[in-house]
Order: sequence, then C-alpha cells, then structure tokens
Amino acid sequence: MTIQTVFEAMRTDAAPGQEVRAADGLPPEATGETLRGSPVDFSHGDVDAHPPTPGARETWLNGFSAGGRQAYTEYRGDADLRNVLAGRLAAFTGAPVNGREGLILTPGTQGALFLAMGACVTRGTKVAVLEPDYFANRKMAVFLGGEVVPVPFLYGPSAEQAGQQNGPDLNALEAAFADGVKVLIYSTPNNPTGAVTGSEVTARIASLAAHHGVAVIVDQLYARMLYPGETFTHLRALPEAPASVITVMGPSKTESLSGFRLGAAFGSPELIDRMEKLQAIVSLRAAGYSQAALQTWFDEPEGWMGARIEDHRAIRDDLLKLFHDAGWEATPPQAGSYLYPRLPPLSVDLGTFTHLLRFQAAVIVTPGTEFAAADIDRIRLNFSQDHAAAVAAAGRIVALAKRYAA
Amino acid sequence: MTIQTVFEAMRTDAAPGQEVRAADGLPPEATGETLRGSPVDFSHGDVDAHPPTPGARETWLNGFSAGGRQAYTEYRGDADLRNVLAGRLAAFTGAPVNGREGLILTPGTQGALFLAMGACVTRGTKVAVLEPDYFANRKMAVFLGGEVVPVPFLYGPSAEQAGQQNGPDLNALEAAFADGVKVLIYSTPNNPTGAVTGSEVTARIASLAAHHGVAVIVDQLYARMLYPGETFTHLRALPEAPASVITVMGPSKTESLSGFRLGAAFGSPELIDRMEKLQAIVSLRAAGYSQAALQTWFDEPEGWMGARIEDHRAIRDDLLKLFHDAGWEATPPQAGSYLYPRLPPLSVDLGTFTHLLRFQAAVIVTPGTEFAAADIDRIRLNFSQDHAAAVAAAGRIVALAKRYAA
Repeated sequence: MTIQTVFEAMRTDAAPGQEVRAADGLPPEATGETLRGSPVDFSHGDVDAHPPTPGARETWLNGFSAGGRQAYTEYRGDADLRNVLAGRLAAFTGAPVNGREGLILTPGTQGALFLAMGACVTRGTKVAVLEPDYFANRKMAVFLGGEVVPVPFLYGPSAEQAGQQNGPDLNALEAAFADGVKVLIYSTPNNPTGAVTGSEVTARIASLAAHHGVAVIVDQLYARMLYPGETFTHLRALPEAPASVITVMGPSKTESLSGFRLGAAFGSPELIDRMEKLQAIVSLRAAGYSQAALQTWFDEPEGWMGARIEDHRAIRDDLLKLFHDAGWEATPPQAGSYLYPRLPPLSVDLGTFTHLLRFQAAVIVTPGTEFAAADIDRIRLNFSQDHAAAVAAAGRIVALAKRYAA
Repeated sequence: MTIQTVFEAMRTDAAPGQEVRAADGLPPEATGETLRGSPVDFSHGDVDAHPPTPGARETWLNGFSAGGRQAYTEYRGDADLRNVLAGRLAAFTGAPVNGREGLILTPGTQGALFLAMGACVTRGTKVAVLEPDYFANRKMAVFLGGEVVPVPFLYGPSAEQAGQQNGPDLNALEAAFADGVKVLIYSTPNNPTGAVTGSEVTARIASLAAHHGVAVIVDQLYARMLYPGETFTHLRALPEAPASVITVMGPSKTESLSGFRLGAAFGSPELIDRMEKLQAIVSLRAAGYSQAALQTWFDEPEGWMGARIEDHRAIRDDLLKLFHDAGWEATPPQAGSYLYPRLPPLSVDLGTFTHLLRFQAAVIVTPGTEFAAADIDRIRLNFSQDHAAAVAAAGRIVALAKRYAA
C-alpha cells in the first residue's frame, strides 16, 4: 500500500464539521425556492444553545495562573487531577480505576480513540468495526495498517428481527472473533443511532472477547446523557470482561467542553502505558491549561445534569414526532443527542440531497454513508441545538425531501 | 513486527518531562552530601521565569466568549486566523504561505510533526533522521513503519573537521538519498545542540531533495530566538527547494505558550491536505479556544521579542563560561535555549549520573542518548530558566561531575 492509497482509503470528504471545504453553490438538480429560517448545523452540537459546564472558564483561568506546573504535566495528564478523576470514573462505571497506572488524559476523545487503536493495531491486525458506527473507527484501523472486519450493528427493528438486544450482531461478532479478530472497537451509546448496547449483549461481548483474547475499546462518550427509563451497562465492570479493555469518555458532548479538547481513557495499565508512549510522539499531552477544566467533570452543580438531559429529551421527542408525522422511520435514541432517520425515496442521491439541504434550507447534516457504506438513505442529526431552531430546521428537511421525492 | 516490538523500539523511558515516572530514591553508587539549592528542571523551559506572550490569556477569554464558532473550527484551524497567520509566516520565512490550502494548526508542534510524518511515511518508507536530533523523530518513523536511515548532524568541531557548515553531513545525506530515502526530517535550530544549519548546506539539502524526490520536514520551532550576529536560512524560500516541503513552527518555546498546545505546519497543499485527513482521526483539531491565543503570535509588543532573546543570551553566556571554566566542551548555541555539553569522564554511566543529579543536586537534565545513541557522555539543558537558579544549578552539575569523576 502506498501512502496515496492509505489516504484514499480513509477519505474524509463528507466528514462532519468540514462542510465549509465542500463544493460551493447550488447543484444543477436544484429546483424551487430557498426555504428561509435560522441556519442549523446538525453536524455537531451548539455550545451556545447548551453552554459549557459552570466553572469551566474559571478553572481554566486558575490553571493558567498556576503557570508551569499546569503547562507541563506528565504526558498522561496532571497526576493530582488523574487521582480525582479516577474516583469519579470508578463511581460512574462501577469498577475501580487506577489513577496512577490506568488512566490517561488526551486531546479530546478522538485523541483517546486514536491512542487506544494505536496501542492495539499494527500491520495486519484484524479489527472488528460495527456498521453503522462512529466514522473514524474504520479510518483509524486503515491508517494503522489493520484489516477491517465489518460487523452489523443491530438496533430497533433490525435487533427485534434478529431476536437480540441492541448491539453488534452476536453471531457475526463470534464468527469474526473465531476468524482471528484481535481488536473490537465500538461506541455505546452508538453514534449515529443513539442505541445503547443491551446488558445481555454486553455480557456476551465480554465473554467472547475474553475467550478469544480480543482487546476491546469501548467509546462511551455519550453515556451520561441517558434518557429516563433507559439503563446502561459498563462492559469494564462485568465479571466476564477481559483484561484488555479500554473505556473512552470525555466532556466534549453532554458537558459542551469541546473547545477545550479533552478526553480520557481508562483500563488496562499495559495499554495505557503504550498509549502514553504514543501520545509522546503524537501530541505530547492534552493542553495543560485546558486540563484544569476537568475539575468540573462529574462535579457539576446539583440538578445541572438532570436539566441538561431533560432539555435534550424534549428536543428529541419533538423531532421524533415531526419525522414520524411525516411517515419517516426514525428509531428513538436511548441516550445522547443523535437522531438517524431514514429518508423517504428521493430523486437525487444522498450527497446531492445533503448539498441541497445546505444551500436551499440552511441545514447541515451528516450523510449516513459516513457511518456505514450501505446507509445511502439515512442522515445523522446532532440535535443538541436551540430547541425551536432545531424543530424548524427539521421541518425544512422534511419539506425538501418532499420536493425531491422520487 | 508485533505491536509489542513496535513499542519496545520506540521506548520513552528517559523522555523529557517524564522523570516523575522514573525510579525513585538514591542509586547505590551515591556518595557524599546532597547539594542544596533551588530545584531546576532543565528538561523544559520555565514559563514562570519567562511568562507567556502578553495578551495570551485575554485572547483565550475572547475565544471562549465567542462560543461555538471558536470551539468548532475546521479541522485545520480557524479560517480567519489561518489567513492572518499566513501573512505573518510568509513575512518571517520569506516565501508565500497559502492560508486556505497550505497551512494547518495542530495540537503543539509535536502534533504538526506527527501529522507531517504520517502524511509521508508508511510501511517501508526510508526516512533520513539526523543524529543528534529531536528524540521523537526516530520514534515517529518507527511507529509509522518507516525504515530509519541515520545521518550524522555536524556542528562546531565536527563540522569544522568535515569542512562544511553546521548541518547534516552532506556526503552521508547524498548517499542516503541515492539509497532510496524518500523523507528527510530535521530541526534547525537543532535540538539538542542549538546549531543552525548553514545557508550553503541548506541550499544543498534543497537541491539534493529536489533531485531525488525527497519530501522535507523542517522543524523550525526555535527559529525566532536567534542570537545577535547569527543568520537563519529558510529552506522553503530557496529557489532550489522541492515542492514537498513542510515547515513546522509553534509558540510553545520562545513565546512560552506551551500550556495552550499550539503548533503550525505550512507548505505543500497536497501534504497539508493529507495532514488534515490524519488530524481528523488523531485529535480533530487544536483546542478551539486555545487557537485564539495565536492572534498574539508574531504580533508581540514592540521590544518584547528583543528583550526575551537578550535575557536568554545572558543566561547562555553565563552557563557557557561556567562549563568552559570547568574545562568542559560546550558548543555555543546560535539560537534557541538548549545547551548540549560533553561530560568529563565519569565513574558512573549516564543514566546513573542523571539519576544522581535528580536526587543529590535537585537538577533534572535530559541524557544525550535520547538524541543520539552514541551520545553517552552528553546532557541537554533547556536554559530557559530563572537566571540565577540556572547558574547555581549548573554549578551543582559541575560539582557532582567532579565527585563522580572517573
């Protein structure tokens, strides 16, 4: 594989947040008037509508004032902070976290995922990647020279049909492990669907991984925004869990701290140690002053998290009603702020439709093909937006889909 | 190569800043009393003694207040900021910089170096790495599956002996290129020696690289702290320069903005494009709010940079006098804040001596072996420290070297 083919294989042309670099102007398929309304960028959350955790700014200022001690932490992050966070992450996930040897702070959860993959994947390593799942998972495996083994992610109707809970198709997963897969990476809540991998499926993943000697990287970025009535199972806390588990979390989403670029990975000390060796040549450390803002993490004011979840539940329910009223298939997310509706049949392809949405409806969405090659009729919306603006924008999506109906 | 051997080959046990993770307590070779004095960590600069650029804190606060727009920039960094910086970097380096297509902002210069290497190096790519040079260069090449081709870096006495200016050994470099090297990475001012690659050598590197189709990654992190009477040649501005050049700079050192984790790479749009694709899976972007602090870069108050250089020149000269008075070989750095003296013959090995320095003299230095396997009798000092504390600490180094003389 030449360096050119490596980069062709991991192309990011439709990556969320990069729309400004996409083609300009109206495509030739465009008909009709522009739909007016407040622009909404569903490719990521709106931290102005849902602002950062209280105290984040002040802790950054304290970090800056602390000077060199805060600027030059260990590569894996400030030692005192790691100890504090270890306790909070252990309480949240239900199993001990070793602050000295088993936790690393990273530039965003993207940084944590890359280091975790880099610690496990080299030339020829077989990596199970779910479809659909977070778009970077496949790309990281490709860049690192791994061999991607796709495994279907079942949710809603597809899970019911297979007779299992939401999660990876267990038959396909077992076959992949038996075929020599050595690394499994997956997100739960799943990005883009918001489906949470069920407790029985999680236990089965754990025991299969332990049996086949598979390292498991679990991206739990959205695990805190769990809607009422839902339950979440932390694989790392199960008795069946293998030794090589890395759990990834961070304050970029629910807590709106994305502008600080902070993430955390915790689990196997051997893998964390490799991740730090890799961080030493990738970025050295998460920005020192930014790290200070993690003092607010899992220590938000009383009621703050509950209110944030309730705000998002309300937006979720209004968008779901809007799509369902239009006759669209849209599985209710159990956690997080992603909706992944299926489009009705259109006369234009998915790329053209998302392009039309940008220029005729002032709406940015992420095409489903970023998450699974087969998802040519789905779009992902991050509905962590101004409530009214999001509902209005979703209405424009439905209207434009009618205009370009097949 | 298994994943274990990859990480063994890039071990970072003595990496600067990681001393807290090294062995604790006095080694058995220790004799005599502890030398008292203010602790000095020469492994990195002291941003309390030489504080961040004026306005850095305020620009960060403005960035935070700007909200989502600043938190979610393009992966390659904020577009307006890139345009501003492009002009300043063009003026500094003497050749145009394309702010839209030819510049990327990264988490630190380490981030820029990793992305540049990742854009050029894949399995089997031959990479010329200078010795001594920045310790991560070799490790990045190894991690990416490249084949390291060492080329001696000549400076001071060794350059004079070879009859060339400071810089890579031109005969060895030409042989390496002829032997199939496709990437050259080097720092100028050189880390750890502070030697600046000369104008004639730079021109020769450029023409050799163009002739052999070699991509060149030039780490100019310390190029702004140039001492009076010295000149600096920017390879990217030479008519001989090949198309595939990436220049790396950042505000972490001279400007003391390390706690913001900011770097910049500029040059070939094709390589910058690959670097952004890679950043999308490595860290997404440099921390959005931190990026705002780059508004101060190359726009410091009048006289500020001159004063900073003069402060460091004064420390440099006092340390050089101290080492020369003790009869040590120490080549005067032409730029930057690194000194790389040769130790007199000792009765203990280098690792033990640096360990003794930590516990008997409250001084942290980086062993020469981080920069070249052969440099078992050198230590690197980052002398961007409190002036008096640095001189006192260097005195303790000399005293301890006498105590453990062979």
